[in-house]
Amino acid sequence: MADSVQTAILGVSGYAGMELARLLLHHPRLKGRAPVFLGRADADHDASLTALHPQLMDNNGSGALKIEPFSWDLLKSRGVNVLFLATPHEQSREYAPLALQHGIKVIDLSGAWRLTDPANRAVYKFADDSAPAAVKIQAQAVYGSPELYRDEIRTAQLVANPGCYSTTVILALKPLLAVGWVDLDRGIISDAKSGVSGAGKAPSPKTHYMHAADNLSAYGVFGHRHTGELLEQLGLDRSQIIFTPHLLPIPRGILATSYVTFKEKKTTAEVDALYRDFYAGSPFVRFFGSGHLPQIQYSVRTNYCDIGFELDSDGRRCVIVSCLDNLLKGASGQAVENLNLMCGWGEAEGLA
Amino acid sequence: MADSVQTAILGVSGYAGMELARLLLHHPRLKGRAPVFLGRADADHDASLTALHPQLMDNNGSGALKIEPFSWDLLKSRGVNVLFLATPHEQSREYAPLALQHGIKVIDLSGAWRLTDPANRAVYKFADDSAPAAVKIQAQAVYGSPELYRDEIRTAQLVANPGCYSTTVILALKPLLAVGWVDLDRGIISDAKSGVSGAGKAPSPKTHYMHAADNLSAYGVFGHRHTGELLEQLGLDRSQIIFTPHLLPIPRGILATSYVTFKEKKTTAEVDALYRDFYAGSPFVRFFGSGHLPQIQYSVRTNYCDIGFELDSDGRRCVIVSCLDNLLKGASGQAVENLNLMCGWGEAEGLA
Amino acid sequence: MADSVQTAILGVSGYAGMELARLLLHHPRLKGRAPVFLGRADADHDASLTALHPQLMDNNGSGALKIEPFSWDLLKSRGVNVLFLATPHEQSREYAPLALQHGIKVIDLSGAWRLTDPANRAVYKFADDSAPAAVKIQAQAVYGSPELYRDEIRTAQLVANPGCYSTTVILALKPLLAVGWVDLDRGIISDAKSGVSGAGKAPSPKTHYMHAADNLSAYGVFGHRHTGELLEQLGLDRSQIIFTPHLLPIPRGILATSYVTFKEKKTTAEVDALYRDFYAGSPFVRFFGSGHLPQIQYSVRTNYCDIGFELDSDGRRCVIVSCLDNLLKGASGQAVENLNLMCGWGEAEGLA
Amino acid sequence: MADSVQTAILGVSGYAGMELARLLLHHPRLKGRAPVFLGRADADHDASLTALHPQLMDNNGSGALKIEPFSWDLLKSRGVNVLFLATPHEQSREYAPLALQHGIKVIDLSGAWRLTDPANRAVYKFADDSAPAAVKIQAQAVYGSPELYRDEIRTAQLVANPGCYSTTVILALKPLLAVGWVDLDRGIISDAKSGVSGAGKAPSPKTHYMHAADNLSAYGVFGHRHTGELLEQLGLDRSQIIFTPHLLPIPRGILATSYVTFKEKKTTAEVDALYRDFYAGSPFVRFFGSGHLPQIQYSVRTNYCDIGFELDSDGRRCVIVSCLDNLLKGASGQAVENLNLMCGWGEAEGLA
Repeated sequence: MADSVQTAILGVSGYAGMELARLLLHHPRLKGRAPVFLGRADADHDASLTALHPQLMDNNGSGALKIEPFSWDLLKSRGVNVLFLATPHEQSREYAPLALQHGIKVIDLSGAWRLTDPANRAVYKFADDSAPAAVKIQAQAVYGSPELYRDEIRTAQLVANPGCYSTTVILALKPLLAVGWVDLDRGIISDAKSGVSGAGKAPSPKTHYMHAADNLSAYGVFGHRHTGELLEQLGLDRSQIIFTPHLLPIPRGILATSYVTFKEKKTTAEVDALYRDFYAGSPFVRFFGSGHLPQIQYSVRTNYCDIGFELDSDGRRCVIVSCLDNLLKGASGQAVENLNLMCGWGEAEGLA
Repeated sequence: MADSVQTAILGVSGYAGMELARLLLHHPRLKGRAPVFLGRADADHDASLTALHPQLMDNNGSGALKIEPFSWDLLKSRGVNVLFLATPHEQSREYAPLALQHGIKVIDLSGAWRLTDPANRAVYKFADDSAPAAVKIQAQAVYGSPELYRDEIRTAQLVANPGCYSTTVILALKPLLAVGWVDLDRGIISDAKSGVSGAGKAPSPKTHYMHAADNLSAYGVFGHRHTGELLEQLGLDRSQIIFTPHLLPIPRGILATSYVTFKEKKTTAEVDALYRDFYAGSPFVRFFGSGHLPQIQYSVRTNYCDIGFELDSDGRRCVIVSCLDNLLKGASGQAVENLNLMCGWGEAEGLA
Repeated sequence: MADSVQTAILGVSGYAGMELARLLLHHPRLKGRAPVFLGRADADHDASLTALHPQLMDNNGSGALKIEPFSWDLLKSRGVNVLFLATPHEQSREYAPLALQHGIKVIDLSGAWRLTDPANRAVYKFADDSAPAAVKIQAQAVYGSPELYRDEIRTAQLVANPGCYSTTVILALKPLLAVGWVDLDRGIISDAKSGVSGAGKAPSPKTHYMHAADNLSAYGVFGHRHTGELLEQLGLDRSQIIFTPHLLPIPRGILATSYVTFKEKKTTAEVDALYRDFYAGSPFVRFFGSGHLPQIQYSVRTNYCDIGFELDSDGRRCVIVSCLDNLLKGASGQAVENLNLMCGWGEAEGLA
Repeated sequence: MADSVQTAILGVSGYAGMELARLLLHHPRLKGRAPVFLGRADADHDASLTALHPQLMDNNGSGALKIEPFSWDLLKSRGVNVLFLATPHEQSREYAPLALQHGIKVIDLSGAWRLTDPANRAVYKFADDSAPAAVKIQAQAVYGSPELYRDEIRTAQLVANPGCYSTTVILALKPLLAVGWVDLDRGIISDAKSGVSGAGKAPSPKTHYMHAADNLSAYGVFGHRHTGELLEQLGLDRSQIIFTPHLLPIPRGILATSYVTFKEKKTTAEVDALYRDFYAGSPFVRFFGSGHLPQIQYSVRTNYCDIGFELDSDGRRCVIVSCLDNLLKGASGQAVENLNLMCGWGEAEGLA
């Protein structure tokens, strides 16, 4: 398949869709095979991609970057075999099964297929949540975190690309939880802060400049949608972690400050070694160690998740700081990693 | 009237309405007589003002700051004799005449009654533009610039509060034009930049944080609505000035950089003296002179219009920089100045 | 004393000094008695206050707002009886004792006199930390939190005005800790975020726009200076709380998200009642209850500390969000509260 | 030479140096031949590039990106044949002649060698301004604007890379001035606005977040250094243009709003055709035409200069809006264009 990959993006009008378009247009394995761009809403059809996102223009005009109205016939006629869904989760619930029926692999950027536990899915209120067909599809979906499921992704038909907050927190905590160092009775706190692009492109009181600028607000306390991903991927129950998102007055970027207590004393060197070992083969984790914490600014407009930590002098209390660009490693960049794995290409191709 | 002034604000849910509420609630002449707050849309009725604008809360709860549904009976029962219209211009066209019929003075913050020349009004497309009743009301409206029409405002029944951009540019240029120093054949340029609150509270692609932040854009080139005010108040025709607004990535504040050429050489001292003389009795113009230009930051959250200039060594080319807070001197603060004048109070009361 | 209060501000060139100047210039009890303005560094002497802070100008010029070179003779000749120290802590260590010797009451905005436990003071490395004279002065200093020490402040000679972060966190947690609800074995987390003015006016790589803007960074993990205040005022030991500050890309404002676990199940109504009761007589705490969290934007440019909370459905895990303006309630506003109390005036005078 | 190009960057610690490092590290013609990185100040020597600019890290650590102390011997031993000077202009005055003596081509990003008229250079106060050696070197310097001097750059030994403001304004106006359409007696206004990175990396009151954020200020009125470049490249005398820079509260990007009057009426189509023709062979000008103006956001993080215009209904007054990223097309990106031309490579290589 790798030699004849033809991608399509449904929902190219949003921020994640735009970044995905940009990445795929410059992907070295896709030269001469631009994605098929499909509007999320009818209103976007027949517009050009560069009318929606002028930053994607080249200087020769851009007639080729047309957004086309979706149809399965169109996908078939263009030979599409990988479909990116940059759509709201309701649409992804509808389109992913149909794509699979048409023999098209799917990388879904929404929350539609990320959660295996119905209790965690409840927050999405899927109409077909317990329908046998949906349950069957959910069972074959692979959670698209290359650091955790590299091999499974290679052969997946349906990849559920992780949430942006989820990626930031899971990559920060997974090494510690995987080895059982964390005292779960003490509880884990993950206090996360995200830029405004995470709230989507639709104008709303929340995304109005006058609300977001010069401000900080917490939201979704004890109830944010991404919590379920944390529980499932980190093997926690709801009583063992509090995840609190905040809206930052910046366009892009997430920083999570996570607090754990170790069962037993550890040294800085031990924590350091654990992370370096865990991420040894992962091209998109930059581990800062201790003494120099990552900042949002370093990771924005890269596909890296940056991780650093500080260990208290008691050897037990540890603060982990992780950062990424919510539209790249937190969405479209990670989706391209997944494409690379599914196609047998290098994980980092088109992302450097 | 001054002893029994009872105000009301129609449209208290917008930014100008909020600032006006704040100013009137703390006005020393209105102690114990809070304004009647009236929603702009039905949706706002029966909400509390502090639910819409939590920054207005005091720590005792705020039951008194209720937004009530508009009716003339309500205004009558409360003894309202000054009505502020912080409404879209279409609504102001409708409400101002009715208020006058009810014997209520009006300070209108919209563009509904600012323009005497039908050609300048054309941009608003008023349904009743040439209706005799409307023409008659327009004739009695006073342009609410205290620096220009202090005496007329004192006795006005209807004050058309100036636009925010207009105030910034008119106060910068009026002294020079009043004495005929400017070579109009060379043309005047006023390049203006405004914060996002000027675009209103309604969420839109333009006010989305992702559009406004880290950006600058020009708009309304050769066609902005406030141009007519400049022409009428400065005595110019359309060929003699270009006014270009830009959207700045800041919440509040306007800065206009205006360029004129003098017919004859002037000295810095002459320009300085002209401005100081012109604004001698005006409490809300801070004249910086030459050598230290005003900046948006100095004027924001004050009711001042700050003005400074630089004169070229040729003695003829002059750059004037003026700044103000678009919600205060550019809207609600100036409206309170007008209230003060209409009530025979000190122009600066409640604004220091 | 209240009838003849004459204030002076040493260090008026910084941000807190500027806000203090603004507040005192408009204080209703100080009409006609402007503070004596004293520069922090020789460089500021004989400058005018408005040259440093043009936003403080009035439109009549501002010759009166001169910054004068410090001397005890000057203070004596002006009859200064309350001295605000808006100075670095080293200077406050030096000046406060001398002022007291001269019979001048002191409100110190630095960290010089806030901490009674030498272990907590160690971070400041005071040269005279254990000198008997300094120890004696420390013993008479009152921690200037009106909500906690209203009565003690009334008669204090030396008030140690609390840190900005400290105020935000202490006011959020004190009611819960005072009644012993919190399970201290589980540990408390306070994840705090502050605007850039908290880092002071001196240009540095940290305060450079290019570092602060579009960014978020954690700093001082396990070692921030304000930690000692939390320990002393909340009655905690170092193992019971983690306080993590972050630098926000905004000019002003702090938000702290604090996490506690109750020993026993509580209801939302119980938590609500506890806070309302605790702050019943405190004019500058606005308690939001549950369901509508405070945001930085609501409290900025007010003297309020806003507090809200969310209680998990387990009735034990509680997230408290508190916000304030670091230059007002977090510094100069609180200093004026302290002045009011020391002078027998209403706590809220000059701050509404 | 093209097959054995070895670059070095002197002054890699600043913003332009960082962007240049990033571009050269990824340049397809320079694979395996990383630039030699040289500190601007001794303080930077032996630091690593990624310690200064963590965003440049890869995830394998980055020992190779060492900053080395400058010496001609080092350059010789590494075979450096192209030296980028990202240094203050005084240093560029000193180093460029020495590099040429060593047979090393120079691309200088400072203002040291851009100006041929001593009157225009006066603002820089070069110690050796009229020294015969310097005059001779100035005479061979080529102004590094590929759109204007593509052929001359190909064979240049010393390229004076244009200023960021200069590039924005020159590219906007050159087509109109080249054909003589502009009525110079009416004067040209160019009102320009730049992000803070243009002010450099050194912390200062001007670059402090508290000054730059939520603000706009004009500076350098009638006296900005880049004015000389406008005069020389556009063939104007000082009386024919006013250039006014402003400091924008954004990290990167420049927008210039330029105002000209045509001698004779033109149509939108004529203006459109003129620009399209002028920039037909220029890969880094995106011409927007009329009706949809460029915005800073579209050009930031690209190497494009975006240009659009609006023509008044009188056919004579024309407003041209141009935008670019001051660190790319306004500095390092344009420097790489110049490298490409000097090496006989495609102008756009390494910049897409």
